[in-house]
Order: sequence, then structure tokens, then C-alpha cells
Amino acid sequence: MSSLGIVGGTVLTPDGRVESADILIDTDAGIIEAITEPGAAGATTSLDASDAVIIPGLVNAHTHVAMALLRGHADDKELHAWLEEDIFPVEATFTAGDVEAGAQLGMLEMIKGGTTTFCDMYFHEGAIADAAVESGLRCLLGHGILTLGKDEAGIVDDLETASSFVSAYHGSADGRIAAALMPHAVRTVDSATLTEVAAIATDLDVPIHLHCSETTGDVEAVLERDGDRPAAVASAAGVFDRDAFIAHGVHLDEDDLDVLAATGTGIAHCPTANLKLASGIAPIADALDRGVPVGIGTDGPASNNDLDMLEEVRQAALLAKAEQQDASALPAPTAIELGTVGGASLLGFDVGRIEVGAPADLAVIDLNAPKFTPRHDILSHLVYVANSGDVRHTICDGQILMRDREVLSLDETKVRETAAEAAVQAIGRVA
Amino acid sequence: MSSLGIVGGTVLTPDGRVESADILIDTDAGIIEAITEPGAAGATTSLDASDAVIIPGLVNAHTHVAMALLRGHADDKELHAWLEEDIFPVEATFTAGDVEAGAQLGMLEMIKGGTTTFCDMYFHEGAIADAAVESGLRCLLGHGILTLGKDEAGIVDDLETASSFVSAYHGSADGRIAAALMPHAVRTVDSATLTEVAAIATDLDVPIHLHCSETTGDVEAVLERDGDRPAAVASAAGVFDRDAFIAHGVHLDEDDLDVLAATGTGIAHCPTANLKLASGIAPIADALDRGVPVGIGTDGPASNNDLDMLEEVRQAALLAKAEQQDASALPAPTAIELGTVGGASLLGFDVGRIEVGAPADLAVIDLNAPKFTPRHDILSHLVYVANSGDVRHTICDGQILMRDREVLSLDETKVRETAAEAAVQAIGRVA
Repeated sequence: MSSLGIVGGTVLTPDGRVESADILIDTDAGIIEAITEPGAAGATTSLDASDAVIIPGLVNAHTHVAMALLRGHADDKELHAWLEEDIFPVEATFTAGDVEAGAQLGMLEMIKGGTTTFCDMYFHEGAIADAAVESGLRCLLGHGILTLGKDEAGIVDDLETASSFVSAYHGSADGRIAAALMPHAVRTVDSATLTEVAAIATDLDVPIHLHCSETTGDVEAVLERDGDRPAAVASAAGVFDRDAFIAHGVHLDEDDLDVLAATGTGIAHCPTANLKLASGIAPIADALDRGVPVGIGTDGPASNNDLDMLEEVRQAALLAKAEQQDASALPAPTAIELGTVGGASLLGFDVGRIEVGAPADLAVIDLNAPKFTPRHDILSHLVYVANSGDVRHTICDGQILMRDREVLSLDETKVRETAAEAAVQAIGRVA
Repeated sequence: MSSLGIVGGTVLTPDGRVESADILIDTDAGIIEAITEPGAAGATTSLDASDAVIIPGLVNAHTHVAMALLRGHADDKELHAWLEEDIFPVEATFTAGDVEAGAQLGMLEMIKGGTTTFCDMYFHEGAIADAAVESGLRCLLGHGILTLGKDEAGIVDDLETASSFVSAYHGSADGRIAAALMPHAVRTVDSATLTEVAAIATDLDVPIHLHCSETTGDVEAVLERDGDRPAAVASAAGVFDRDAFIAHGVHLDEDDLDVLAATGTGIAHCPTANLKLASGIAPIADALDRGVPVGIGTDGPASNNDLDMLEEVRQAALLAKAEQQDASALPAPTAIELGTVGGASLLGFDVGRIEVGAPADLAVIDLNAPKFTPRHDILSHLVYVANSGDVRHTICDGQILMRDREVLSLDETKVRETAAEAAVQAIGRVA
């Protein structure tokens, strides 16, 4: 057995304590073999975790990773105007190569920020899957299905692309890559197609992920089209009978939350993007009170503008307090849970807790900085102080993806150069 | 003349452009001598700015820097309960040595994050001034004056302490240290004393800084005590006839904003602390529309929990969009202005713009990271992506405070050890 020790540091336990321990990983099986007293783990290779805390790898529960090519291209605009005027025209020119270049860039950034699992919805999703295999990350991927503005043949084609993607990639890379059916949004997919998606998902036995109630415009458009609110429409179409989770859920009323709770449908909460696009603040504390599963996502890097899950966990904790007018809302221990095991549960991966026998998906957070001094409460520091630049090592499925800030699975220089060039070319095509 | 060149990078100009240039600093005078074509500046010493952008040093317009000792001590609690149960009891035991240790820690963190100027209100403020002189930072400091719960003798003593501090420190360290009169808040200082503070400030010719309308409780307490809202009470006391600025201003109505605009009274906006303590979201876009001067502050590091001004600039830009329900509110160029020249204007320092003849207060932001790839818009990256860990060099008053992440003016190891020990001791005294 090859083994990897992460030694000399502290470990965040599933019940929210931070204690001194070493972690021993069976790298062949990709699982945590033992959590031992400091110094007790004899391993083939070891990573230094002194003055650091080992946490479960962060789970980015909703993104469009290839949009890294477009970050900073257009800011300070409302969601639908931004999409229609600035984003869709460039995306329409993206080749599979562009998407792969953008995806590699985003994955590089996620590894540098301690994210080990993500959920992605886009097009040319096969290129994203290929990049994910190479990156070593764990992910749930799906082709975004749209019916708005498409004729019947176009819709059939989209469903076929989505199904073929699932058949080709679901369970690949030893289970690191999972696939889902991903109708883009209740607003942009008609209810007949939502029903069809639910049936296909049942046939293929995969979950469903879709945008829902991101803006007031989303809710109004669906009310006008179907006479009911987006959550009710998706539920009536059978979408929530599957393992399903929505992105955003900013404009969910009490009935909507009841629908989600009753069906076990989760929310991938994207607080920064919801602020940046002026969509609003999602009622996450209310959702949690009702038992709705919640994870945290960055959304695409063009609406954030980064993939920093530690910042996103902090933003979730901060915004819940404003939304509830209650400083005790979404306290630090809950926030870090949502950013790890909460998101993992939505995506259907049994990761997100540091336990013997669990997949070894870990991030080592370096606490050697003035901002982490003093150390009254390391969990507080993780939520209210840490960000992606503080991650020392990233491990996924027992493999070292980043050691001492150096990414091992991707060539950083090459990925950045290729993506920068693709980004300039793409903008140039529509300028 | 000794000179310092910052070479090979780009410069953020006062009109919001980013262009390739070198900066030549007269280190004796502490001013920017020239902004030249790349390669043209011959200097005694030089700092590398390749793959980086030189911005004005950030200005933290409101903090209580010594509270770095208490970060993470208690979180997820409402402002007044947090203060009364967790903070005041420990602060009551702080010696001048504790305050100096906390202040040095906070200053170390600010230098590492590219902040070159800050405004601080606390007690044992002389210890903070001494730390500031050593740190090389520029600052506006004041002793916090309180009347709530004090007898007449106590109030006289507080005013005397505040005045003596001004006399001892205002204009010291070649003008790097300025002092102000700082009545703690409209809520905690009676209106007769506010009137007296305004008169003393006029005699001493210094500005006034105070908390105002941070919570709904603040507004209600002053309404009950004085029959008017805090801004009107401070204005009637003559506080706003001086150069004055308030902290927070979360609960300002239209009349309050009119009072601020009419008197040229500014707001030090602390978005993260206002979220964390569930105080609310300040109406900053409305304030700017009326011509109210605005700067950005972190508030004390125990209610944030760090001193990262780049994160704070981002939070200001994001929250304004939610508060206005308008994604174009507080766009990136405005946000970075508020975090630099906006704050500097409040504090009364003529810094915050990169211009020939201006004081050389600068931060060099390293763009060599996946998250800054591609480079469609560097200003967007500064606001929506960068944080304190991306600062490569910090220069204040022409002196290098940090070079390649190494702080030169303070001994990082010693400052951190001393502060950590002081923090543990302080908590131990009340446990």
C-alpha cells in the first residue's frame, strides 16, 4: 500500500472541533486510513501541516467553470442585460477548445483555493469532463438544456446531447466524475421538457440540477407562462421527485420552501453572484430551519469574479445575518458545514467529513499569518478570515493536487497562457 | 537625494486607467518625484512591479486596531450583547501594553494588506500612536470619549485625556500622525458634551469623528433621550460645523443624509462589520448621490474579523447593488476610489492618488495568479478578485514598509508572539 501522511497540524472534526492529529491516507484506495495522535502515522510520503488546519476539501455546489475566460469582461450590470449583451454573444463563438481552456483555468484556481469537488453546468461539457479528469478534481457535470428560442428539433438535439453526456461520463475516472441532467432553468425550459427531463433522469438514474427563482424576473416570467411559481412548476413536472437541487433560490416564498422541504430538494446558494447581479439575498436561514439541504457555490467566475469558496462561505454567513436581522443566523460552524458536507450531499458524493474510511478529499489551511493571530477560535478564522490564498495543500481522492501552493495535476503556466489567449481571441471575435 | 523606483509594472491613474509606467520616489521628501515611461526612472533602490499594478495605498477609514487581540473571541452575536457580554469585560482589563501589542498586530496586518493610512478610535491611544510611529503608517487617531454611565468628574477626565492626546500627538512623525476629537457615539455621549467637544475641536483645530446610527437601537435611544435623530442631535451640537465624519451611518433616513450633505460631513462605511453584527446595510449609493463624502473601513478586527481593505472595497461594491436592487450601483471604479482617496479626504490627508508631487503612499498588487487570468479589466480584478494576500509591496511616505511580503518596519515574529500572549492573558483574566 502507498500511503500519504499529513502531519504536524490540526484537524477539523465532523462535530466542529479542531484537534491536533495526523492523517494517514491509503493513496491506492483514495481513502482516509487513520486519524492518529501526532507523530504516530508512518507514511511513504508526507505533507507538512504544522501551523495549519486540515479541513474537508471545499465543495463548490454551482458554477460554470469555463466562464473564467470572461471574468472582468463586463461588470456592474443586471443579470439578464449582462447575459444578453455581454456574455451570450461571446459564448456563442466558444469552441470546445475554448471551453476546455476556460475549464482548466477555473480548475487550476479551484485547486489553489482548496476546492476538491464542484458542480458545473455548461455546453461542450465533454471538454470540461476531460479537463476534470486531468485536474484530479471530483465533480458533477451536466449539459445545460434550453428550450427558450429553440424549435422542436433543437430541443430534441439538446436532450440527446445531455443524455449522451451522461452515458459517456457518468461514473468515469473511478467515480470521480458524475453526471446529471441539467435543464438550464425553470424560466428557460418549458414544462413539457422538464417532465421529459425528469423521465430521462429516472431512466439514467442520475440527479437533476437547474437554476430556479434567481431573480424576480424569473418568477414573473414563469408565473405568466405557466400560472404558477417556478418551484411549483418544477415540482409538478416531476423534477423534484428525483434527487434534485436548484441553484440560487433567491426569490423563494414560504410555499416554495415547503415544496423544497417536502421533496428533499436542495439549494446551491451563490451569495456573491446574487449580490453582484443585484438578484437579491436568498432566504437561506429560513430554508435551513425547514430542513432544506443547502450547499454553497461561487456561480460562474464571470459573475463573482473568482472561485474562492472560503470567501463564499464567509459571504453566506454574513448575508444570512443581514437577511434575518439576527447576528446569530448561520453561525461559523454551520457555514463551514454548508461549504463542505452540505454541498457534497447535494451533489451526491459521500465526501465532506474527515473520518476514517471516507474519501481523502482535504484542504490544508495555513494559519501562519498575522490575520490568524491570536487563535481564540480556529473555526471562526476559517469562516471570517481565511481565503483561497491561505490554502497550503489540496488533496482529492487521496492524490496531492497542490503541494506548498504548487499545483501538480495541471501545468499552471501553460493553462494560464492558453486561457488568456483563448479569452482575448473570443472577445476579439465579437468586438 | 535618495530615490526609490517601482519598476516594470502598471499604475492606476487618478482617472481610473491602468497604464504601463514606472514610479520614481524622492524618499527624503516622501513624495512621488516622477511617473515615467517604463525603464526611464533611474533610482538608488528599486522594487519590482512586473506582473503587478501599483495603486494608491488603501485607507482604512474606521477601525479599533487593538481589538485584533479579540478577533474570534466571540462571534455570531448582536452588536450590543456582544459588546456588553464579551468585549467590554475584557477591554476593561487592557493595560497600555496590551493595547500597544494589539495595535502592532493590527498594523502588521494592515501593512501586509496594502493599507497605508487608517483612522483609529480607542483608549490608551498614546500606545497606539507610539506603535503607529514605529510601523511607518499614516493615521488619524483619537481617544474615545464616553459619557454614558460616567459622573461629571469622569466626563471631565475623559475630555482632558482626549485633549491631551491631541496636544501630544497631532502633527507628529512629520505629519504622519494626526489627531482628532472622537466622542464615541451620539448614543453614548450626551448632547451637552457633544457641544463641548465641538468647541474644543475648534480651539485645537482638529476634526471630529464619531459613531452614528449604526443600529436601529442607536437611533431609538437618541430619539428617546433628545427627541431627535442622531445626525440632527450631532448637528445641533455643532459637531458637523467642524471637519467631521461619522462611522457606519447604517440607519440614515433622507433627512439625515441631507444634514450630512449640507455640512459636508462624511461617512466611514463598514459593510462587513454591519453585516456580521446584523446592524444592516448603509445607504451608501444614496449618500454618494447627494454628494456626501464616503470612505471605507473594516471596523475593529473583532467584528470583521480582519483588516483586509481590498475585501472591504469589494463588499462595499457588492452590497450597494443589493441595497439599491441595481447591479450598476457603486461600480468598480467608484469602489476603489472610496477605498483610497475617499477615505483619505475624510481623514484630512492629501493622499490617495498617484500623482507627481503627492505623498508616496502606495501598494503593489501582484497579478501573477490564475484568479487574475485573463486580464480584460484590471480595475475589475482589483475590486472583485484581489485581497490582502495579493499585496507584494507596501510603501508609505516614501518608505518601504513591506517588500516581497516581508514587513520591514515591524518584527513580524515578535509582534505576533507578543500579541498572542497578551490576548491569551486578557481572556484568562475574565474567564
